[in-house]
Amino acid sequence: MQFKTRFKVDQAEAGVKPVTGKHIIATYHLSSDAARIADRAQFLAIEQSVECPLEAIGDPWVRDAILGRVTLIQEIAEGRYAVRIALAAATAPAEPGQLLNMLFGNASMQPDVELVDVELPRSYAAAFGGPRRGIAGIREATGTRGRALTASALKPQGLSPEALAVIAGRLARGGVDLIKDDHGIADQAYSPFAERIRAVGRAVRDANAASGGRTLYAPHVSGSLDTMRRQLDLIRAEGIGALMLIPMIVGLSNFHALVRETEGLAVLAHPAMSGGARIAPPLLLGKLFRLLGADATVFPHAGGRFAATAESCWALAEAARGQWDGMKPCLPVPAGGIAIDRVAELLSFYGEDVMLLIGGSLLAAGERLTEQAVLFTAEVARHGKSQHDVASR
Amino acid sequence: MQFKTRFKVDQAEAGVKPVTGKHIIATYHLSSDAARIADRAQFLAIEQSVECPLEAIGDPWVRDAILGRVTLIQEIAEGRYAVRIALAAATAPAEPGQLLNMLFGNASMQPDVELVDVELPRSYAAAFGGPRRGIAGIREATGTRGRALTASALKPQGLSPEALAVIAGRLARGGVDLIKDDHGIADQAYSPFAERIRAVGRAVRDANAASGGRTLYAPHVSGSLDTMRRQLDLIRAEGIGALMLIPMIVGLSNFHALVRETEGLAVLAHPAMSGGARIAPPLLLGKLFRLLGADATVFPHAGGRFAATAESCWALAEAARGQWDGMKPCLPVPAGGIAIDRVAELLSFYGEDVMLLIGGSLLAAGERLTEQAVLFTAEVARHGKSQHDVASR
Repeated sequence: MQFKTRFKVDQAEAGVKPVTGKHIIATYHLSSDAARIADRAQFLAIEQSVECPLEAIGDPWVRDAILGRVTLIQEIAEGRYAVRIALAAATAPAEPGQLLNMLFGNASMQPDVELVDVELPRSYAAAFGGPRRGIAGIREATGTRGRALTASALKPQGLSPEALAVIAGRLARGGVDLIKDDHGIADQAYSPFAERIRAVGRAVRDANAASGGRTLYAPHVSGSLDTMRRQLDLIRAEGIGALMLIPMIVGLSNFHALVRETEGLAVLAHPAMSGGARIAPPLLLGKLFRLLGADATVFPHAGGRFAATAESCWALAEAARGQWDGMKPCLPVPAGGIAIDRVAELLSFYGEDVMLLIGGSLLAAGERLTEQAVLFTAEVARHGKSQHDVASR
Repeated sequence: MQFKTRFKVDQAEAGVKPVTGKHIIATYHLSSDAARIADRAQFLAIEQSVECPLEAIGDPWVRDAILGRVTLIQEIAEGRYAVRIALAAATAPAEPGQLLNMLFGNASMQPDVELVDVELPRSYAAAFGGPRRGIAGIREATGTRGRALTASALKPQGLSPEALAVIAGRLARGGVDLIKDDHGIADQAYSPFAERIRAVGRAVRDANAASGGRTLYAPHVSGSLDTMRRQLDLIRAEGIGALMLIPMIVGLSNFHALVRETEGLAVLAHPAMSGGARIAPPLLLGKLFRLLGADATVFPHAGGRFAATAESCWALAEAARGQWDGMKPCLPVPAGGIAIDRVAELLSFYGEDVMLLIGGSLLAAGERLTEQAVLFTAEVARHGKSQHDVASR
């Protein structure tokens, strides 16, 4: 990611040295006065690598190869600095939780420190594998070409499986490409997982059969890895083609473990518990979730219910779908308080490889939900078409 | 937790209503101007329950029983409010990840919102079970009475199993009660988990045999639930009596799933990825980690490397070890840059039921580590004794 430099910091004076060997390059933003920034940066490099005073390091190899190195210090605003640190890749092998631990485990407890970006050696893309289906796989499953995709959510919390199925049927008949559970819907007594996905799965299948559509349903899979595996079995048994996971709640290692078992299914990542601006959303929701196998990633779009800037949303979308070591692109899914009147604006902003997720503002239509969904999907299709026309002239 | 009220907010005017039924009472702090606080609070109650516009709720039961209710609004500082929200317990059954999701999933993405406290119906204590061994179990395993406990960490990252074993042996001979892996030490090529715990476990056993001591070793268990189970098997095979987990990285559901399989072993929780002041440390590291079964919980003490106040540390210790529905107490483990010269201060502050964790500043002693550990343990024992003398007069 790019950031503006305010004043040049003398790198040699600040103790910055070049690195060799296989490193993870982590970029942090932190607050400091000019006199202390070199120390703060060095302190952060120690905290995220050896976590002890330098005099406690007896082994010269640890000092040379394992100790984090500050590779850049830049002032980006008054009293705010970008610090780049090279962490030995050997400390965070291809294990998702350990990677997060070395990137931000202890630094997360220092409130002024933000993890902004990470550059990983190529081997990580191969080891983690990224999206299994990616944008092309979701387009194939939903039969969408030449336009953006549409999504909606089953809500509110508290409805029975049958009531949610009615909503799902209406959305599917309205042509929405993907319907996900609301992220708070899990395995509650009033809506047990097995009953819910059976009822909703059938409603979506019936709607697809009637309309010739190919709407996907993504149930929210949650709990321990054991529980998630049982839920995955139920999803397969019902012939459902997608699922949604919350990586920051299930834990990145379990997220990735489950992704490896989802062959043929599209994996949607939800941003709950991703915190507010402590790990930059483009890095966490774009880059890291993609690396670990999200086929699509939900995130709050600017101007909705959450604090997000247009610049950050664009960076997130590009991290999710841009070129990266041969990894498949992950579909960006802006959400969080979007209504139909913003479709044109969002499609101009993101272009065609995007899935717009509108939940609450569609559902307010009640009985007229199908018609409202038709308005939504038609608006997206119309925009796709005109873009296409422009491009083909 | 207590907080000072600045100005009384007229509750009826702000739309606050009493609740009935089984509720989770969550307390948040958020920023607002006076004119908007009633709306912000209501918005938060919606976000953490039904997550949709009220007009999208057709079912009256959902509106009555599931929709979150604002039960209190108090200004605690200029423009900063405490808001108490009753969330239906039915939305977050006894499943740890789902509980976190309903408490803070989406609110975590609003940077001014902090989750400060939670009151749970009694059934949660019974369902989650809390610490299996607790303070008494750790005292029994280490044979410590009438004094605080001592702990240290194996570092730095990068050392071989044999080099870490040498350090562990020195610390054990110095009488430290518990030795944990540094939180960054996982399963790296230069220090594979199986080899490390074998070497360190043997060094600690040998030191115990020579000295008649009962030092515990707590290896850092990490990765997916599958990987953690394999590591737990190795721990049992080596006759090691404790383990350390990072709940916010492995995921709360997997943390709890593993705790249930650790019969006879002491579980130490590490605070990495617990964020900076977005979930109050007394709540997350004290209350919630205890609820899910941590026998001991590590946290940064005030005046060390992390931002922590004495007030928050005390609240954390009390949440960990105070009375709570018959649940066993969890041992508070202040850490994060403490040196021996602060032992007396910390013991006066926390009292006897505490484990002091000193890592880096001991390790800087190098070859003289055993002697340094003796100074540490003797200082803790001396303080315990004098306290005891005073009490018995």
